[in-house]
Amino acid sequence: MLQAIEDYIHNTKEASLEELYEFLRIPSISTDSRYKDDIDRCAQFLKGYLDGIGLEKTTIYETKGHPIVYGEWCGAPDKPTVLLYGHYDVQPPDPLELWQSPPFQPECRDGQIYARGVSDDKGQVFCHLKSIQAFLSEHGELPVNIKILIEGEEEIGSPNLTPFVEAHTDLLKADTVLISDMPMFAEDRPSLCLSLRGLVYMELEAVGANQDLHSGQHGGPVPNPIHALANLITCLKDSDGRVMIPGFYDEVASVPPTIQKQLQEGLFDVDGYKTQLGLTTLVGEKGFSTCEQQWFRPTLDCNGIIGGYTGEGAKTVIPSKASAKISMRLVAHQDPDEIVSAFMTYVKEQCPPGITLSVSAHSTAHPAMVDADQTAVKAAQQAIKNIYGKDPLFLGEGGTIPVVSEFERLLGIQSVLMGLNLPNDGIHAPNEHFSVKNFYNGILTSAHFWNEYARSY
Amino acid sequence: MLQAIEDYIHNTKEASLEELYEFLRIPSISTDSRYKDDIDRCAQFLKGYLDGIGLEKTTIYETKGHPIVYGEWCGAPDKPTVLLYGHYDVQPPDPLELWQSPPFQPECRDGQIYARGVSDDKGQVFCHLKSIQAFLSEHGELPVNIKILIEGEEEIGSPNLTPFVEAHTDLLKADTVLISDMPMFAEDRPSLCLSLRGLVYMELEAVGANQDLHSGQHGGPVPNPIHALANLITCLKDSDGRVMIPGFYDEVASVPPTIQKQLQEGLFDVDGYKTQLGLTTLVGEKGFSTCEQQWFRPTLDCNGIIGGYTGEGAKTVIPSKASAKISMRLVAHQDPDEIVSAFMTYVKEQCPPGITLSVSAHSTAHPAMVDADQTAVKAAQQAIKNIYGKDPLFLGEGGTIPVVSEFERLLGIQSVLMGLNLPNDGIHAPNEHFSVKNFYNGILTSAHFWNEYARSY
Repeated sequence: MLQAIEDYIHNTKEASLEELYEFLRIPSISTDSRYKDDIDRCAQFLKGYLDGIGLEKTTIYETKGHPIVYGEWCGAPDKPTVLLYGHYDVQPPDPLELWQSPPFQPECRDGQIYARGVSDDKGQVFCHLKSIQAFLSEHGELPVNIKILIEGEEEIGSPNLTPFVEAHTDLLKADTVLISDMPMFAEDRPSLCLSLRGLVYMELEAVGANQDLHSGQHGGPVPNPIHALANLITCLKDSDGRVMIPGFYDEVASVPPTIQKQLQEGLFDVDGYKTQLGLTTLVGEKGFSTCEQQWFRPTLDCNGIIGGYTGEGAKTVIPSKASAKISMRLVAHQDPDEIVSAFMTYVKEQCPPGITLSVSAHSTAHPAMVDADQTAVKAAQQAIKNIYGKDPLFLGEGGTIPVVSEFERLLGIQSVLMGLNLPNDGIHAPNEHFSVKNFYNGILTSAHFWNEYARSY
Repeated sequence: MLQAIEDYIHNTKEASLEELYEFLRIPSISTDSRYKDDIDRCAQFLKGYLDGIGLEKTTIYETKGHPIVYGEWCGAPDKPTVLLYGHYDVQPPDPLELWQSPPFQPECRDGQIYARGVSDDKGQVFCHLKSIQAFLSEHGELPVNIKILIEGEEEIGSPNLTPFVEAHTDLLKADTVLISDMPMFAEDRPSLCLSLRGLVYMELEAVGANQDLHSGQHGGPVPNPIHALANLITCLKDSDGRVMIPGFYDEVASVPPTIQKQLQEGLFDVDGYKTQLGLTTLVGEKGFSTCEQQWFRPTLDCNGIIGGYTGEGAKTVIPSKASAKISMRLVAHQDPDEIVSAFMTYVKEQCPPGITLSVSAHSTAHPAMVDADQTAVKAAQQAIKNIYGKDPLFLGEGGTIPVVSEFERLLGIQSVLMGLNLPNDGIHAPNEHFSVKNFYNGILTSAHFWNEYARSY
């Protein structure tokens, strides 16, 4: 049966790439309200695409934020149902000047497709849509039932997904969730992910005097909000890379034994990683390996800071205010709400005199752990083996997919976390890319997964 | 003789204001190369103005940077010569959104003229030009010889003024320098300034990885340049407000006794100052009064910082680089070159691992102290008394006028530092203003100064 599917995928290669490009050209930036029309246009495009490949009940569900696109094929009542989750929104492309080709004009160079969102997550979503198209086009049916939910707010913490899932538990009823929104371990080292970090994203605003002041006339007695933020950022993390918020590590789980074993076998090429990033030194939390630091240890980073004069040349000003964005990655079983609260208490305690500090939370997400013994995980293992000729590694992932813990809580099902892109695809950075090879391997792996899952059920 | 001059000044009030507005409409921002044409236009305007009021040898001297405007009246060979110094360049007006009227469209509201540069220094320069115009128009001559030097690079540290003065010592030969580029003590508390702070303005750039990174996938092991800058800023100043660069305080002079006495008499209204700035706490160097901190103690402030995502919402990025502008105000007898060197050594020593740090100096300027016993200072005292009905206070000033020490070194003459504006005019900040009352009092004081200096010589 799969030979025909593989032939179809092979024969429609060029068309698939063109369709992906159309998807990528829409600047569906969720965090910036100026792109609201593009977000809506992207949802329309997706609905049209789902209609076109033969899905049913295709709907754009409005939310308080950006819309959710849904479609399904449920023509196999005796077979299991997969809820496919992905997102069509993307990160802002700045700094724009570092892109070699415009972020929303996809371009293929040396086997890599360059565009914002090509790897995170439009390209990976498209792998699954193309495999579904292959089955429906060739056979008029799929080996399993598939429900597709593609949201537009993943990059801003999915604030409206939970209410949607809560309100549509019957519609979304399934046996497993399939998510491809993380990387495989490395080129030709396919993997399945068993854990994801959670997220708490905070914003600090420090205010000193009620106006910008001349640093000569006023410099000395006047509190400087940039110094205040610098002090706060400094006291959030010690020189051993440990977060200094009281209670931060209280609920942190240990590394799963299967993964711990792989790590001890020297899974990760630390020197190659440093070379790739142009670094001579890594600085993570003392006492943990690089992979442990990225996958199983919580951490804290300032993601943005601005204050005072930042243009060309010099301006002698003591600014009235300065602000910083600070996020923490959480691991099982840290609770985001408790971390928000501990963070707020700590920074307010540490705030230097003379400064008024505002603290707010942009978003929070729970960490997640999934069970390697699920039928669907085993089917994914086999599908990957069929395409790559080797067993996938079991990994953790440092990023966050807020919905994994939410699907478990609301629908009672775990997820298969099947990474189709690569860690060095430059997601969230200039020149984000996705290899044409991984795009087609992703379509093939997806096709085999539907098949293996139907067989093993 | 002065009655006719005062009448002239009185009768041309409206026209003077209109001419000042024309000067203010030119956005002569020296630090931003996009305004080069406006700088040149401003120099042309000034030359035309000097021609129009009857000055001689009016010339625009080109420099490696922005031009210097010169003009003179030397028709009184038996009288002393004053070198009038001022600057026609202004600070950038940002943040623009905080201006109540556009910064380069001067507007008078409630007796205050609002415009960038109106107080620093175009308005003060104009006071002297108007008094000169009054004498030349009424009498065809001045009580003293006057040489006028107005530069266009004061706000960027006057990088090309010293070479100009070195190359034109004969042209600029004078008995004293007159500068109005600092405030009087307070409304109706006129003053003369005896000391100015120097400046060292540095830029730091911290680079971590060779690209922006996803904070989920990479957060933990990867060095964050924002944290590095935060650490560096934090270790530059202790919680007592003292700069921690080794050797920083070695050459600091003590407060002159005349001023120390005034300070002990409770000259400065600290509570009023806090109220004016919306502050509940001042945070300067422990053990010194507010005025001592501002006038006679060196200090350090971060004037700008930027790194990572600074737009609306949240972006989970570990930036590749971040930068900060840091300036230090110096006092007699600190040496700017030695401070630059000590700063560079210290920040490089303190830089956290994994970060490549670049340090550069934007500009430096020596601090200055002038002698209260000069004939010209005494003439200024009398001129102020004639207009305000009271003796001026003797003050220090926290700001920097790089040329004061340079004129002393190159021409062998000290300066009269006659502030005509007010400390709360919002210079370098949004809604910079200068009162119409002080503008006219400035013209009158200037006229009396020429007269008193001629008499006392």
